[in-house]
Amino acid sequence: MRPSGRQPSDMRTVTFERKVSMKAEGSCLVTFGNTKVLCTASVETSVPGWLRGKGQGWVTAEYGMLPRATGSRNRREATAGKQTGRTQEIQRLIGRSLRAVVDLAALGEAQITLDCDVLEADGGTRTAAISGAYVALVDAVAWMEERKLTKGKVLKDSIAAVSCGIYRGTPVLDLDYLEDVEAETDANFVMTGSGKFVEIQGTAEGAPFDRSELEALMGLAEKGITELSAQQRAVLGQ
Amino acid sequence: MRPSGRQPSDMRTVTFERKVSMKAEGSCLVTFGNTKVLCTASVETSVPGWLRGKGQGWVTAEYGMLPRATGSRNRREATAGKQTGRTQEIQRLIGRSLRAVVDLAALGEAQITLDCDVLEADGGTRTAAISGAYVALVDAVAWMEERKLTKGKVLKDSIAAVSCGIYRGTPVLDLDYLEDVEAETDANFVMTGSGKFVEIQGTAEGAPFDRSELEALMGLAEKGITELSAQQRAVLGQ
Amino acid sequence: MRPSGRQPSDMRTVTFERKVSMKAEGSCLVTFGNTKVLCTASVETSVPGWLRGKGQGWVTAEYGMLPRATGSRNRREATAGKQTGRTQEIQRLIGRSLRAVVDLAALGEAQITLDCDVLEADGGTRTAAISGAYVALVDAVAWMEERKLTKGKVLKDSIAAVSCGIYRGTPVLDLDYLEDVEAETDANFVMTGSGKFVEIQGTAEGAPFDRSELEALMGLAEKGITELSAQQRAVLGQ
Amino acid sequence: MRPSGRQPSDMRTVTFERKVSMKAEGSCLVTFGNTKVLCTASVETSVPGWLRGKGQGWVTAEYGMLPRATGSRNRREATAGKQTGRTQEIQRLIGRSLRAVVDLAALGEAQITLDCDVLEADGGTRTAAISGAYVALVDAVAWMEERKLTKGKVLKDSIAAVSCGIYRGTPVLDLDYLEDVEAETDANFVMTGSGKFVEIQGTAEGAPFDRSELEALMGLAEKGITELSAQQRAVLGQ
Amino acid sequence: MRPSGRQPSDMRTVTFERKVSMKAEGSCLVTFGNTKVLCTASVETSVPGWLRGKGQGWVTAEYGMLPRATGSRNRREATAGKQTGRTQEIQRLIGRSLRAVVDLAALGEAQITLDCDVLEADGGTRTAAISGAYVALVDAVAWMEERKLTKGKVLKDSIAAVSCGIYRGTPVLDLDYLEDVEAETDANFVMTGSGKFVEIQGTAEGAPFDRSELEALMGLAEKGITELSAQQRAVLGQ
Amino acid sequence: MRPSGRQPSDMRTVTFERKVSMKAEGSCLVTFGNTKVLCTASVETSVPGWLRGKGQGWVTAEYGMLPRATGSRNRREATAGKQTGRTQEIQRLIGRSLRAVVDLAALGEAQITLDCDVLEADGGTRTAAISGAYVALVDAVAWMEERKLTKGKVLKDSIAAVSCGIYRGTPVLDLDYLEDVEAETDANFVMTGSGKFVEIQGTAEGAPFDRSELEALMGLAEKGITELSAQQRAVLGQ
Repeated sequence: MRPSGRQPSDMRTVTFERKVSMKAEGSCLVTFGNTKVLCTASVETSVPGWLRGKGQGWVTAEYGMLPRATGSRNRREATAGKQTGRTQEIQRLIGRSLRAVVDLAALGEAQITLDCDVLEADGGTRTAAISGAYVALVDAVAWMEERKLTKGKVLKDSIAAVSCGIYRGTPVLDLDYLEDVEAETDANFVMTGSGKFVEIQGTAEGAPFDRSELEALMGLAEKGITELSAQQRAVLGQ
Repeated sequence: MRPSGRQPSDMRTVTFERKVSMKAEGSCLVTFGNTKVLCTASVETSVPGWLRGKGQGWVTAEYGMLPRATGSRNRREATAGKQTGRTQEIQRLIGRSLRAVVDLAALGEAQITLDCDVLEADGGTRTAAISGAYVALVDAVAWMEERKLTKGKVLKDSIAAVSCGIYRGTPVLDLDYLEDVEAETDANFVMTGSGKFVEIQGTAEGAPFDRSELEALMGLAEKGITELSAQQRAVLGQ
Repeated sequence: MRPSGRQPSDMRTVTFERKVSMKAEGSCLVTFGNTKVLCTASVETSVPGWLRGKGQGWVTAEYGMLPRATGSRNRREATAGKQTGRTQEIQRLIGRSLRAVVDLAALGEAQITLDCDVLEADGGTRTAAISGAYVALVDAVAWMEERKLTKGKVLKDSIAAVSCGIYRGTPVLDLDYLEDVEAETDANFVMTGSGKFVEIQGTAEGAPFDRSELEALMGLAEKGITELSAQQRAVLGQ
Repeated sequence: MRPSGRQPSDMRTVTFERKVSMKAEGSCLVTFGNTKVLCTASVETSVPGWLRGKGQGWVTAEYGMLPRATGSRNRREATAGKQTGRTQEIQRLIGRSLRAVVDLAALGEAQITLDCDVLEADGGTRTAAISGAYVALVDAVAWMEERKLTKGKVLKDSIAAVSCGIYRGTPVLDLDYLEDVEAETDANFVMTGSGKFVEIQGTAEGAPFDRSELEALMGLAEKGITELSAQQRAVLGQ
Repeated sequence: MRPSGRQPSDMRTVTFERKVSMKAEGSCLVTFGNTKVLCTASVETSVPGWLRGKGQGWVTAEYGMLPRATGSRNRREATAGKQTGRTQEIQRLIGRSLRAVVDLAALGEAQITLDCDVLEADGGTRTAAISGAYVALVDAVAWMEERKLTKGKVLKDSIAAVSCGIYRGTPVLDLDYLEDVEAETDANFVMTGSGKFVEIQGTAEGAPFDRSELEALMGLAEKGITELSAQQRAVLGQ
Repeated sequence: MRPSGRQPSDMRTVTFERKVSMKAEGSCLVTFGNTKVLCTASVETSVPGWLRGKGQGWVTAEYGMLPRATGSRNRREATAGKQTGRTQEIQRLIGRSLRAVVDLAALGEAQITLDCDVLEADGGTRTAAISGAYVALVDAVAWMEERKLTKGKVLKDSIAAVSCGIYRGTPVLDLDYLEDVEAETDANFVMTGSGKFVEIQGTAEGAPFDRSELEALMGLAEKGITELSAQQRAVLGQ
């Protein structure tokens, strides 16, 4: 029934490749099927003005998409002179999600910026970005620890994200682009490795949904996140 | 326990005042406690370029906040030269929420713009905006119907929104500013008058939340939306 | 002869409502007929960079208009990414006008920002804004005095503004929108409570005007300002 | 008493040089003492969108100042990314002033843009710009007439502008920079060759002014404009 | 002598990988040593406004660099709100270079946009971008030919680019980052497969250079371009 | 053969006029035929942030063109809100060229900004700008030396620039606008008074060029620069 032939509760093939950037303190190339996102974590030993002198750090994210990551070319945001509302919404979500598992005091007065740049887009770019950015973040924190730049344990848990939706009446896990454009309901779940929710965003694209449908999506999300968390641990050698 | 002395499941005093604008086709001044939002609905008999010739209309929203709606003055976005990410996120949410109950084909080639400007902010500005914008929208649609500008029934349902959160460990309904800054979890629910979900946005500001906590919040939201929907019907004389 | 039935030397009904904002140090909702402007005065205990260390304060103004304050919706300036030339011209005028009655040294190193946001526009928004901003300013200065933040008497006089014009050959006071679009000459006068001029801006929209016409407008302006000043004193309990 | 040794009612030396631009349909290099402004008039055979199909033309102006026209270098507006409020205010004034003597219907569907670029600034740049732009405009209109692009007489009168002010208690004509920064009151007058007012902008920079002071300034302005108008006629060979 | 141990006339290892983008009509991942650039060619069947109706096409380029392509993180241009001067200069160079080998009339009314996004930067990003963009362009033209969208032979020659410089007194080929920052003279050469020059940009970063030094650089460039052209032919199966 | 009747190796008439600005520390009005550029040098006793505390100065340039410097009016960059890519490319070139002959350490912590504003454009504006800016720079450095603001000899050489091109098959010196639009190859050369190259930018506008053509252009450039350098020395009284 799904265009890809997957079962409703099947994730696409997911891969995480660490240390793909020669320069960044942490990096990860993550793929969810044909969606491919390059995540880098950059450590800077200063914090935004409003945090200065407070003895804590910050984690933030920026999101971008190459103009031809999609079926037809999108205008380059640097040329347009601003980020779209969609881009800002996504990068705010990535930043919030990662901060949920970071002890900012333990970072000291340092900032880690996660750049998530979509090389190919086939649905689920924000969930891939969160999942991959976490891997890059772990390596950046390790880099800081090696240099004794942290003050105690920085990471409180792991984090990953997945989308679910109601496609032709059936709840399905990890929507690809063809499913995404047609789904009646689309929901993104960000969860910790320990199985708690950090963010839920559900939107009725077609018909409004009811509580039982939402619960079905939550069940799928829990399954997907469990798999993603296991893969993250594996690639990180934990 | 709540700063305002409310019970966990109490809404603040909510008022809707219709036809407050001399010029707009529809308008509503909505208050949720000390939060006050002026909503106007403007009908234009043309649609954005990408919709032209498709025989359907559009509903969109813009959100703004007066610089001194808040405790300390915020920079005016028109002076800064751009809308913040937060503003864009909110106005996209308002637009999506209202479109969920509109039959765009029945609108014909017309656009309705909902401007939601916050005169005073004390938490819950986006939920007040959605709830008030619906009232303004109803009047704008009635204005169109009187002029025979529509093609059949435009509104499929009513829509309202409310926030819930976990404040000092207890799930509470309709957070005010003091609760909002301290809440561990903050969630916005947009629901139809018939009790279905159109949008759920839940964020762990402090500790991640679990399924039972989310369900408690949903229960509160359903209660709040029921009350708001009744008030909307009353003020609209339905 | 006037669309409103007023005599040439009649003002519209003018109201000033103080303390309308829960948060601002001073505020005033002013109406000139159907024109309605919300003015807030915000005190900040710092000054712009170029004034730092000079032992004096600053008073500045920003002006905005809600998109649907007018008969057809105007583009929101925050969306357009900049303030129009008209907006900048008006807010510079408001700021200059208020500074004319303020002893900046007596303010100490503090800044007061007057935000004048037009909720409904029916002609004369800039003159209403100046007149209302003065009331908000008085309350903000009182707020500072209560906290012993000033160095002596801040306000040297009161200030108010009114427009006059030549409408269908006759000099008239306080133009509303219908008169404004048709007036041959349009002039704005800003005057102190003691009857002196702070700013005169006269523009021939149609035919150039001569000295006797200008003098007729000045006479009307003096009458209007006298009335406005009396109302300001009354609402301020002076 | 004046820094330049001039009498209160003396203009600075004024020169108009026509046809200084190789390319523009009309041009004039105007000097008021050390203030030097290059004015070009460009004819385009199209009009702004909002005028299309109305059978009339438009006259508009843009104003700029070279970064080092002044004693210390100003930031280039093209680098800053926007025109200052002052620049916009001035170019709107220039445009309005010239339109006051133009029969827009006689222009046909054409637009004339007056570019006024300040090469050296020593006070009075906006009044020099208006006076010089008029000379450039006359030549551009003649250029159109030679090509039979006009529909009847385009120019209804001539236009010139001058500033006056109260300097150390004395009303003086045509302020230079040293006077301008110190003047208590500063007023710009735009008048037709036939002696009528098109625009008056008077501002109390120091103490508010009264009616008799304003009348003294008007008298000086009439004298200055009479001289400027005669010089314009002479240079134009009228 | 070179930091990399290369001989003065050695290129770094160069690779071209075709068809790396799932969506673009042509694409190439090019590496010059550690410099890695993703080039996509997007075909659009419309042309910029100024070319419409002229029966010819257009080729243009945009250049970007991921924020962490470099040793320390650069500000994202989309966040900054504009492209830097350097970025604009490079993308104009890429566009000009590719147009030099394209018969624009043979393209018909179509536009090909080359997006060159630097994933890793280690010197020579613009020369790698030109060389890789050519490969992507060839595939995009083939895509058009298959669909009979072209009017005759589009490509007149091949194109490649390389940098040379004087490093510690010795002319060297294909500077990497360490050489680039220290080079006295830095020159970029864009040449056709047939050995002619399309663009030369030589800059004395330290001491000015003389004709014999420039000729030495030209000789190296010819060697480098010959090798690059052969590799392009090989990867394209020509 | 040339539209102007010049021989292939003839420069246009070139003039340098010093001290044309009343305010700037150095200034030069330079003409290359009908191209006319006003260059001012402004000394500021501070440096950009990234140079602070390094005990050296900076030389930078900004380039602008009056809207009607050209045959048809160009949009004013200050109105457009940004400088074009062409403008940025040119001002970066001017800055680099002048820095090539300046000992930045000898400047101390001071910055000299060269503003090059094109009053009339007839080809070769960037080369005229560089040649004239050098003259303005010499006077600004002399101004600093008189005030003992420098630390030793600031200028290491003189600098001038000229364009050459292949016009209808013949290499020619100093292209005017008519030649420029038609030239197959266009090259700009920046050279020191001692005959060394600082910058070469050659572009094939039509057919690619070969080494012998480039050498012919270099020969012409050397002749032109020799003449310009002699004129610079003469006007500077060296």
